[in-house]
Amino acid sequence: MTFAFDNAPVWLDLVGVFFFAVSGSLLAARKNIDIVGSLLLASLVGLGGGVIRDLVLDSGPPAAFSNPAYLVPPLLATVLVYSLFSSVQRFTSLLILFDAGGLALFCMTGTVKALDVGMNPVAAVLLGVMTAVGGGLLRDVTANEVPELFNPRDIYALPAFAGAVLTSVLWVSGVFNALTAVAIAAVVFTFRVVAWRRSWQAPLA
Amino acid sequence: MTFAFDNAPVWLDLVGVFFFAVSGSLLAARKNIDIVGSLLLASLVGLGGGVIRDLVLDSGPPAAFSNPAYLVPPLLATVLVYSLFSSVQRFTSLLILFDAGGLALFCMTGTVKALDVGMNPVAAVLLGVMTAVGGGLLRDVTANEVPELFNPRDIYALPAFAGAVLTSVLWVSGVFNALTAVAIAAVVFTFRVVAWRRSWQAPLA
Amino acid sequence: MTFAFDNAPVWLDLVGVFFFAVSGSLLAARKNIDIVGSLLLASLVGLGGGVIRDLVLDSGPPAAFSNPAYLVPPLLATVLVYSLFSSVQRFTSLLILFDAGGLALFCMTGTVKALDVGMNPVAAVLLGVMTAVGGGLLRDVTANEVPELFNPRDIYALPAFAGAVLTSVLWVSGVFNALTAVAIAAVVFTFRVVAWRRSWQAPLA
Repeated sequence: MTFAFDNAPVWLDLVGVFFFAVSGSLLAARKNIDIVGSLLLASLVGLGGGVIRDLVLDSGPPAAFSNPAYLVPPLLATVLVYSLFSSVQRFTSLLILFDAGGLALFCMTGTVKALDVGMNPVAAVLLGVMTAVGGGLLRDVTANEVPELFNPRDIYALPAFAGAVLTSVLWVSGVFNALTAVAIAAVVFTFRVVAWRRSWQAPLA
Repeated sequence: MTFAFDNAPVWLDLVGVFFFAVSGSLLAARKNIDIVGSLLLASLVGLGGGVIRDLVLDSGPPAAFSNPAYLVPPLLATVLVYSLFSSVQRFTSLLILFDAGGLALFCMTGTVKALDVGMNPVAAVLLGVMTAVGGGLLRDVTANEVPELFNPRDIYALPAFAGAVLTSVLWVSGVFNALTAVAIAAVVFTFRVVAWRRSWQAPLA
Repeated sequence: MTFAFDNAPVWLDLVGVFFFAVSGSLLAARKNIDIVGSLLLASLVGLGGGVIRDLVLDSGPPAAFSNPAYLVPPLLATVLVYSLFSSVQRFTSLLILFDAGGLALFCMTGTVKALDVGMNPVAAVLLGVMTAVGGGLLRDVTANEVPELFNPRDIYALPAFAGAVLTSVLWVSGVFNALTAVAIAAVVFTFRVVAWRRSWQAPLA
């Protein structure tokens, strides 16, 4: 199952960028932002977490800038949301689902990329969580929303944390491959969506 | 016309910093922020976009820190706004004009600096736009304003995008010089100001 | 007094991280954010300023990521605030005091770290101020508060500026050591707290 898995992180990353970008464009549509602002919000949420990750790793310009392929998902997301969802009312549900997809992929790719350049597993987990929650935080702060991250009636960061820890443990054990990656993504996505549907809450600080 | 144009980017950059810094100090004055806060807001908007650009390019400490000359424009802007404009009521018009000046210069200097260190033209355009809109975004987010960027009754990012594309095309064609630079800046500035005066709108997302 | 002072910046940095992290957790408690959000806010304010500093200095991954010890203070702060202060009503006073402690230490460690890698004293002062005010700015912007920095009825950045200038001058004069460091921290902390208690104001912009 591990054939050609070397390139998998880039593909997973691009799909994650697309999911987050759709969440950005949906938020733009809900807030009556124009199509250019929608493209910018989609880019910010889709690429923001990864750019912060790459700046921290300090290994040359961020992937989002050195590889033009990263610009395709935000463009695609903006066009799709503009042409398909303009009449859709259930923005919130869709936004949460796409956001959860991005979260599930980014907590893995962030952790893997950090381990790959030789960071210790603890720092890799931290960076994985940051990659996963960073873009959404930028999206909400920029659009003047209270970040989903700080919504006490919802659980947002814990699934990303669980995914980053699982990724780190499996990587160190040498059994991180396409199969286990899919399993982790499924766990994180399900955890996040169920937490949202059932309004799970963590104790207040 | 190209003699001594090697240093032109630094000069254009400094003038752009000054324009943006004035917009920051004007916003501070409108929001009753004190003079120290005004200096910080002027620095944030004037230097923010360039610092993000230089962090992404990953070629040593950002110019704003390695070259103390960059600290002069924010200081100058704060003093000027404090001493001259305190009784001026037309803050918004002035703010938009200075902001447009910064936008016109930064979309060029950001693109040129990226091309200069060997980035591909597409990434250079993206970085040019980010340099141009980054400082203003930081200014508005920090001062708790809805970013001008996301105002549906206004066009903000398109002029910067047009300027970055023009810069990239002219640079690759080898005809980017002082004369064409002035032409690009004039086009971007006019596009931005006319779009604002006439309330041009892009389609909603 | 200078024996073993080589490692002092790391210790001062960690204590500063703790102070700022407590201020983040206290804000989280006041805003009814849950315990996971509290940990994230504590990390953001405690580590944010230092991460920005290290990104600007461009000398490898930020200390917060390469040294796992930096993750202890935010964890400790979250647990402490959760278990001890949940019934405390005087959140604001406590928050300001801890924030002032962080400010006093970070304006020194930021300046020293910049001088240490060979930056000029002016840039080092700027970076010291940025390190000191950066985390708190991120905290307030993320939690959708008006940044303390821009509160016209309060003086926030000036003490940090004074501390950074003092640090820079003493360092260049070769008399920056444990004793003078404690003195600077005391001056900055006192300046900040007295300015807050007496509602000192700088002139409006």
